[in-house]
Amino acid sequence: MKLGVCYYPEQWSEDIWKQDAAEMVAAGIEWVRIGEFAWSRYEPNPGEYQWEWLQRSLDILGDAGLKVVLGTPTATPPKWLMDQHDDIIAVDEAGNPRNYGSRRHYCFSSETYRTHCRRIVTEMASKFGKHPAIKAWQTDNEYGCHDTILSYSTMALEGFREWCRDRFNDDISALNTAWGNVFWSMEFRDFDEIELPNLTVTESNPAHRLDFWRYSSGCVASYNKLQADILREYSPSLDLIHNYMGNFTDFDHHDVQADLDIASWDSYPLGFLDWSTYNEQEKRQWMRTGHPDFAAFHHDLYRGVGKGRWWVMEQQPGPVNWAPHNPSPLDGMVRLWSWEAFAHGAEVVSYFRWRQAPFAQEQMHSGLKRPDNVDDQGMLEAKQTASEVQLLMSQSTTEADSTHMHKEVAFIFDYVSDWSLRVQPQGNNYNPLHWAISIYTACRKVGVNVDILPPHADLTGYATIVIANQQLEHDGLLQSLKSSDAQIILGPRSFSKTQQYQIPKTLAPGSLQSLIPLKVVRVESLADFWSDDVNKLNASNQQSLTVKRWREFVETDLAPKYKSADGWGLAYQHNNIHYINACLEQDSLNLLLQEILLNNDALTVKPCLGGLRQQKIGKWQFFFNYGPEEQSLPNHRQLVLGTHNLAQGELAICLNEK
Amino acid sequence: MKLGVCYYPEQWSEDIWKQDAAEMVAAGIEWVRIGEFAWSRYEPNPGEYQWEWLQRSLDILGDAGLKVVLGTPTATPPKWLMDQHDDIIAVDEAGNPRNYGSRRHYCFSSETYRTHCRRIVTEMASKFGKHPAIKAWQTDNEYGCHDTILSYSTMALEGFREWCRDRFNDDISALNTAWGNVFWSMEFRDFDEIELPNLTVTESNPAHRLDFWRYSSGCVASYNKLQADILREYSPSLDLIHNYMGNFTDFDHHDVQADLDIASWDSYPLGFLDWSTYNEQEKRQWMRTGHPDFAAFHHDLYRGVGKGRWWVMEQQPGPVNWAPHNPSPLDGMVRLWSWEAFAHGAEVVSYFRWRQAPFAQEQMHSGLKRPDNVDDQGMLEAKQTASEVQLLMSQSTTEADSTHMHKEVAFIFDYVSDWSLRVQPQGNNYNPLHWAISIYTACRKVGVNVDILPPHADLTGYATIVIANQQLEHDGLLQSLKSSDAQIILGPRSFSKTQQYQIPKTLAPGSLQSLIPLKVVRVESLADFWSDDVNKLNASNQQSLTVKRWREFVETDLAPKYKSADGWGLAYQHNNIHYINACLEQDSLNLLLQEILLNNDALTVKPCLGGLRQQKIGKWQFFFNYGPEEQSLPNHRQLVLGTHNLAQGELAICLNEK
Amino acid sequence: MKLGVCYYPEQWSEDIWKQDAAEMVAAGIEWVRIGEFAWSRYEPNPGEYQWEWLQRSLDILGDAGLKVVLGTPTATPPKWLMDQHDDIIAVDEAGNPRNYGSRRHYCFSSETYRTHCRRIVTEMASKFGKHPAIKAWQTDNEYGCHDTILSYSTMALEGFREWCRDRFNDDISALNTAWGNVFWSMEFRDFDEIELPNLTVTESNPAHRLDFWRYSSGCVASYNKLQADILREYSPSLDLIHNYMGNFTDFDHHDVQADLDIASWDSYPLGFLDWSTYNEQEKRQWMRTGHPDFAAFHHDLYRGVGKGRWWVMEQQPGPVNWAPHNPSPLDGMVRLWSWEAFAHGAEVVSYFRWRQAPFAQEQMHSGLKRPDNVDDQGMLEAKQTASEVQLLMSQSTTEADSTHMHKEVAFIFDYVSDWSLRVQPQGNNYNPLHWAISIYTACRKVGVNVDILPPHADLTGYATIVIANQQLEHDGLLQSLKSSDAQIILGPRSFSKTQQYQIPKTLAPGSLQSLIPLKVVRVESLADFWSDDVNKLNASNQQSLTVKRWREFVETDLAPKYKSADGWGLAYQHNNIHYINACLEQDSLNLLLQEILLNNDALTVKPCLGGLRQQKIGKWQFFFNYGPEEQSLPNHRQLVLGTHNLAQGELAICLNEK
Ligand SMILES: [Zn+2]
Ligand SMILES: [Zn+2]
Ligand SMILES: [Zn+2]
Repeated sequence: MKLGVCYYPEQWSEDIWKQDAAEMVAAGIEWVRIGEFAWSRYEPNPGEYQWEWLQRSLDILGDAGLKVVLGTPTATPPKWLMDQHDDIIAVDEAGNPRNYGSRRHYCFSSETYRTHCRRIVTEMASKFGKHPAIKAWQTDNEYGCHDTILSYSTMALEGFREWCRDRFNDDISALNTAWGNVFWSMEFRDFDEIELPNLTVTESNPAHRLDFWRYSSGCVASYNKLQADILREYSPSLDLIHNYMGNFTDFDHHDVQADLDIASWDSYPLGFLDWSTYNEQEKRQWMRTGHPDFAAFHHDLYRGVGKGRWWVMEQQPGPVNWAPHNPSPLDGMVRLWSWEAFAHGAEVVSYFRWRQAPFAQEQMHSGLKRPDNVDDQGMLEAKQTASEVQLLMSQSTTEADSTHMHKEVAFIFDYVSDWSLRVQPQGNNYNPLHWAISIYTACRKVGVNVDILPPHADLTGYATIVIANQQLEHDGLLQSLKSSDAQIILGPRSFSKTQQYQIPKTLAPGSLQSLIPLKVVRVESLADFWSDDVNKLNASNQQSLTVKRWREFVETDLAPKYKSADGWGLAYQHNNIHYINACLEQDSLNLLLQEILLNNDALTVKPCLGGLRQQKIGKWQFFFNYGPEEQSLPNHRQLVLGTHNLAQGELAICLNEK
Repeated sequence: MKLGVCYYPEQWSEDIWKQDAAEMVAAGIEWVRIGEFAWSRYEPNPGEYQWEWLQRSLDILGDAGLKVVLGTPTATPPKWLMDQHDDIIAVDEAGNPRNYGSRRHYCFSSETYRTHCRRIVTEMASKFGKHPAIKAWQTDNEYGCHDTILSYSTMALEGFREWCRDRFNDDISALNTAWGNVFWSMEFRDFDEIELPNLTVTESNPAHRLDFWRYSSGCVASYNKLQADILREYSPSLDLIHNYMGNFTDFDHHDVQADLDIASWDSYPLGFLDWSTYNEQEKRQWMRTGHPDFAAFHHDLYRGVGKGRWWVMEQQPGPVNWAPHNPSPLDGMVRLWSWEAFAHGAEVVSYFRWRQAPFAQEQMHSGLKRPDNVDDQGMLEAKQTASEVQLLMSQSTTEADSTHMHKEVAFIFDYVSDWSLRVQPQGNNYNPLHWAISIYTACRKVGVNVDILPPHADLTGYATIVIANQQLEHDGLLQSLKSSDAQIILGPRSFSKTQQYQIPKTLAPGSLQSLIPLKVVRVESLADFWSDDVNKLNASNQQSLTVKRWREFVETDLAPKYKSADGWGLAYQHNNIHYINACLEQDSLNLLLQEILLNNDALTVKPCLGGLRQQKIGKWQFFFNYGPEEQSLPNHRQLVLGTHNLAQGELAICLNEK
Repeated sequence: MKLGVCYYPEQWSEDIWKQDAAEMVAAGIEWVRIGEFAWSRYEPNPGEYQWEWLQRSLDILGDAGLKVVLGTPTATPPKWLMDQHDDIIAVDEAGNPRNYGSRRHYCFSSETYRTHCRRIVTEMASKFGKHPAIKAWQTDNEYGCHDTILSYSTMALEGFREWCRDRFNDDISALNTAWGNVFWSMEFRDFDEIELPNLTVTESNPAHRLDFWRYSSGCVASYNKLQADILREYSPSLDLIHNYMGNFTDFDHHDVQADLDIASWDSYPLGFLDWSTYNEQEKRQWMRTGHPDFAAFHHDLYRGVGKGRWWVMEQQPGPVNWAPHNPSPLDGMVRLWSWEAFAHGAEVVSYFRWRQAPFAQEQMHSGLKRPDNVDDQGMLEAKQTASEVQLLMSQSTTEADSTHMHKEVAFIFDYVSDWSLRVQPQGNNYNPLHWAISIYTACRKVGVNVDILPPHADLTGYATIVIANQQLEHDGLLQSLKSSDAQIILGPRSFSKTQQYQIPKTLAPGSLQSLIPLKVVRVESLADFWSDDVNKLNASNQQSLTVKRWREFVETDLAPKYKSADGWGLAYQHNNIHYINACLEQDSLNLLLQEILLNNDALTVKPCLGGLRQQKIGKWQFFFNYGPEEQSLPNHRQLVLGTHNLAQGELAICLNEK
């Protein structure tokens, strides 16, 4: 539980560098990230490096006692490099170049760009790899930001053809069969005939698109590995980090993370809410706090990506500039957001940014300090957080006291399935990530800790396993489930496609039919104007749930738990296996999950009212109130911080019951 | 009244071909369409044909007693052909190529592509033109699907220049005058200066766009003729068919049909509803049945296109994959849709498709069989339909008993006027096809048979003639109307432009002023937030109608039938001629048409309540209930099938009164 | 107070030219504009001029006693010219050419096009510069129409690089510093490295975009000057005019006007309303009258641009063709619109157009005459207006009686700030022009005369100065305000950026802090679903106002006048300086402005109910009723025209109180 900050010495007069460092230390900040956008200052002309200013900056920060994360500057190649080469620029789906003038103007498939990345990273690492202030490296910045994973360049075309050749062992008929190219005479005679799946007259082959996505994701991993390998060589003992994003799944983060030590993400609760697919009522309700489960979902996701080691690299400190609307956070939220991250196991929460820049694109993005160098609200809350962390640490005797995460619910989230669901959503109101977060929300509403894990994860020790978005059959996951005696909840569309994006021979849920005897024989996607209620069967309380957007018709001898007026059944159970064969409204989904989880004796289920949320870590239990109504804490042990009644934006820390 | 099915032997193991054929026959299916997407299997490499598998498939189908429609594969040219030539690809309005990777990736103006079509069709026809299983040919597939009629390629530019040269007799000043090019200095000095009407700074000349549409439509006709001529040569006795689409008017279907024998269309009631411009309430109301008048409109339209001979080539058998949302049809609708087609005179209703494919773009499109080869709901309903057809046929003594269409209302629909109304709709909420269907609906709500005919059709024998969308003056139609003593109903905008898209010298309704003494001196288009009520004059019942979207101000000595509070008058009559000078809400339009048609003693008007609809053919009268409320049949003769009270999705067949 | 009309002799048979001229004179029309789209008739082939027809037309018009405004034809270069040169066409932001086929298909940066403009204007001016019928010249037509100011051509790129080199004195580091290019490594090493700010991966640098806008605006001014210089040389005594547009601010009109004598604009109240950002309720309310303040805003704006001399060059005479919907105006509105213009000081109101053309793009645009040459409603109202003008003139003894504008409120509108606010609106529901008009509306609702002026204007003599949209610090304006003892009202965002689009060192309102002691330390933009009420402090009446879209948090010792429940304060005053630190709903803004202006003893404030509006000119006071409810006149002097009670669309003229 440490605080950090993002800092851009190159953007300020050298006169104030020392004072900045001193103020950081005084504020309780221990980490500072620098350097990731400064290529034009590192190498102002081709091959002419200027490292002196960076040396001076590192010396000042290090002398002040700060630990530095140094970023490689490859998210913003300078103009002269773009002018030297015309095979660096990415191309969008419409075939237009994505030119120089902002950032991320490179294609991951460009070998030329990789050559230059290798060069600049080697130069930096060889110069500074042993600088005592540097304690970690960050590779590049926010891979994929501004929709930059899928590039339709000629470099990508060549790379994809080679990738296909490898995947299908140089057998083009294997590819044709796997993709079903006989449909519409889409058969290729050779890998060199393959095109990128854009600019077609109508929808291109979904299997083609899914494999292009796999290829593109792999490019991010190999690009990141190229940098990681160099940094490891020069700084073998330092942690390697990348700062991922929220609401972003365009590459498989587990693959990229394989070459890194710590996962981090950039958390902007208000900006992400405005960008999100939450409806207007939800956006209004949470406009000054962020949605209570959105950041938490990502904390749990990136803890899984980082195999336990994770940071918030950029924490929103006040209003941002880049969302459609940029309201001011409620006072106290910067502190609350920081603590929510710590409660989920963040090693560091680092604010973006130290001081608001008065120029360029993000000049309306607040910092801990205002452009006139006066402390802003975020600074006050950062300082409060720092002193509260100190208090908590003083009560921890072992490291585990503040870092141990309790295994309760394993939540399987598969990046590849997220792509496959987007390739062919079958219903234009179906957003697979939003739906996954909706299931996550239902779990979190009953107060359990959730670990978001990939399908290949070890699932031992969990009381419940939720299959959130696993559209593609997955042998490893199937084996894990077969050997588990946990409660298993399968969401709709589970295992409804093979890895090659075909319908399984036995229909959905494919090989999961070995776990639960049912078969999905028809599905339907439904416009937003449609919803239908289902009623609980054989129950004294006539609980009713509302189904929306998606229904599956199953063939089974199992009895459904709910039925609609037209006889359609919802929710099946076979021993420890539950199958949810529809999408539901959030409140209904909450009720259904609560009903299932309450039946699990191995779980401690404590429903959360309104905007109240809980999270357990080590010896602590946290309560956060995002909602407008005051909430009193449910049963809890000794209060360490805060009060029994939480107003909006307040938090409490208790001793954990376990 | 025969059933058929669309089948893709190339997509399945040859092992099950025989069983498939046997099951088709057992289901009561007599026709099977194959082959229209298989070019890559016919000619896997340039000039290397592989016809053996097709021969085996035809033999199996023919041996089973099935009649085959063989499709030419030109909707999906293979990759190697596209790689050979860069002058095949179509170009969209924004100037982007419409590349290989799905289907219909060719430009109708490409002479190169025509050469290759000529080659492949000649090869197929010479090989199989006399195969005993083949009873008909289909040319290409769904001309224009995915917005592929208007292509802005250099081939189209060259073709259009020649077309203009012909149309204006090599006199460029005639073109300049016709288009009014003096406006904004758009005058050309030579036909080679003409450009395509896209990528202009603001709206290009509407006359220019209309003529480009005429040119493009003509390209479809000549492209189809090229194939038809070859097929006639090798199969002089077989019927030639094309499968047209719903909600699609981008080319003049009568021109294409001139070279064919049977018109067919592909009927997807649920998909089309979701794609349509019906409002949300209507989409919700009919989401599982389709709109009660939408398929019927197309049945009547394509019966006119086929001069009486028409099929449904593709009938939706369950949920589809391609609409924004894809709900499951109400059980019974596949049967009802089939019967609605037969009631309108369809010779064959052919389901798309035999078995759901587990791969590629349409893997979520249901078939009569599921991907696991089990019968789906559609199969059950197809079988029921087949046995009911048999029952009906057993009661028919002459062919006319089940095929004669009774002449009641002639409904004039002009493709060229549809384009002219879209070129300059004057009101962005004005969809001319939707408005035409709205008038059709009003006619159908009073239970009359409607023939949808082109303006050059013979109109003798009809009790009523409705001019639905004839914006362009048409001499032939004017003569037909002059010589008719039928009731004539002129819709708004009738004859409001010359064939060259100019305002007639005497203003609208142009030469129709010889039939009714009024002149439209001002029009206005109105946003959806506007509507106004008009009240019936000189009537005991104070009926009020609601006007929307479009009003015309007329100069006339005739008295209007209705007036608004601000003095504007609606609906004029002069002898047998009615002029409706506005758009109305559907319910109001229904009332107005009912009022007019009730006054026609030559018509039997029986208003339909709710979702009930009627259609007469031969000795039968059909009743269909699309609506949720049960409906009892109005006065009718002996019931042959069904009951007196129809629940949603049910139908009844009676002996016809006539 | 004269009437005029726009006329296109080249579009009509020469047979009726004389009759047209005679009818114009009979209608009371004195001015006629011709010729601005006729290049293809002036020079049908390269270098082959045909001036005879123009000569004949001018002779006829002149002989009839009409005064001609002759337009240069450069808005519509002919096809042969576009074919000669590929360096004329403009390029849109997506990189696509904006081709020939409509109008304005040229790039202001094209030197080639300027050469040809120089040639054709010189030819015209030398031929006709002394023709006795010509009393004024119009340059080109509607600069910028169809979004044609910002062009992303290679010509623009070259021009912009030179412009930057000049602006930054050949010092690229000065540019890098001014734009803050260190952010994201956007630094250039040379002016030749600068790119245009389009097609970037994400938002390009706002300072870059603002300077590109300055460059583009400057191109319009130099392009206009090129023509003006030639016209001056050949017609030194004639007035030079350009016809500007409504709702259009893409170039600095004051810069263009510097080379002209009279400003004019093209006023289409109904079309502009439908195009505007008014909400649906407002669009419905004013659909047949136009918004009561929209034309008035532009009248006052262009009077300022023309330094007192201005016309309406094109006045809507009936329904138009080009808006999304084109309703018919309420009878009487053509007269009312004409008088509203005269009340604001228009020298001429000229109708567009004489006779509706039956062909080409605008064939549905009405004229004073219908296509069949019958007088339309607009003609009747023009004639009525002409005779009423005569009546009024008969009562004026000095010119000032009908032309003197009373100084009351100076309203500062800065074109450059309008661009800067659009470059980075910080809130996608923030339309800076709409907000400025909203403030204007609030002033007009209290019945004061408003002069809309640029920030460099002389502000002496005004009772109140309103700073409407001055986002950029402006030294000249600051000096004017410092030396003024007028009531000064500063809107939100005032002086919140430097001229180089940076945050002022002392934060907003920058150098205005020398006038009022407050500092904006945080801003927020808010979605439309948000609003909040603020209540008046220390007041007997608990007036409440509604804040929307934008709030500023200020640091000050001043007390706010209003406070929200969460403690945020609205509206500060320091001596004669008011600062409004938020956006408000229109009704609330009206109340707030009324409250402030009522406190100004130097102003005569008379609130207007409903759709009633007032304007004073010379010895007259005008009342107009745009609203549906009848309004009786407030206190007034002797009635000269009209009645005491005005129905919708009626007007009254009284003797002015002053
Ligand atoms: Zn290089
Ligand atoms: Zn060839
Ligand atoms: Zn030239």
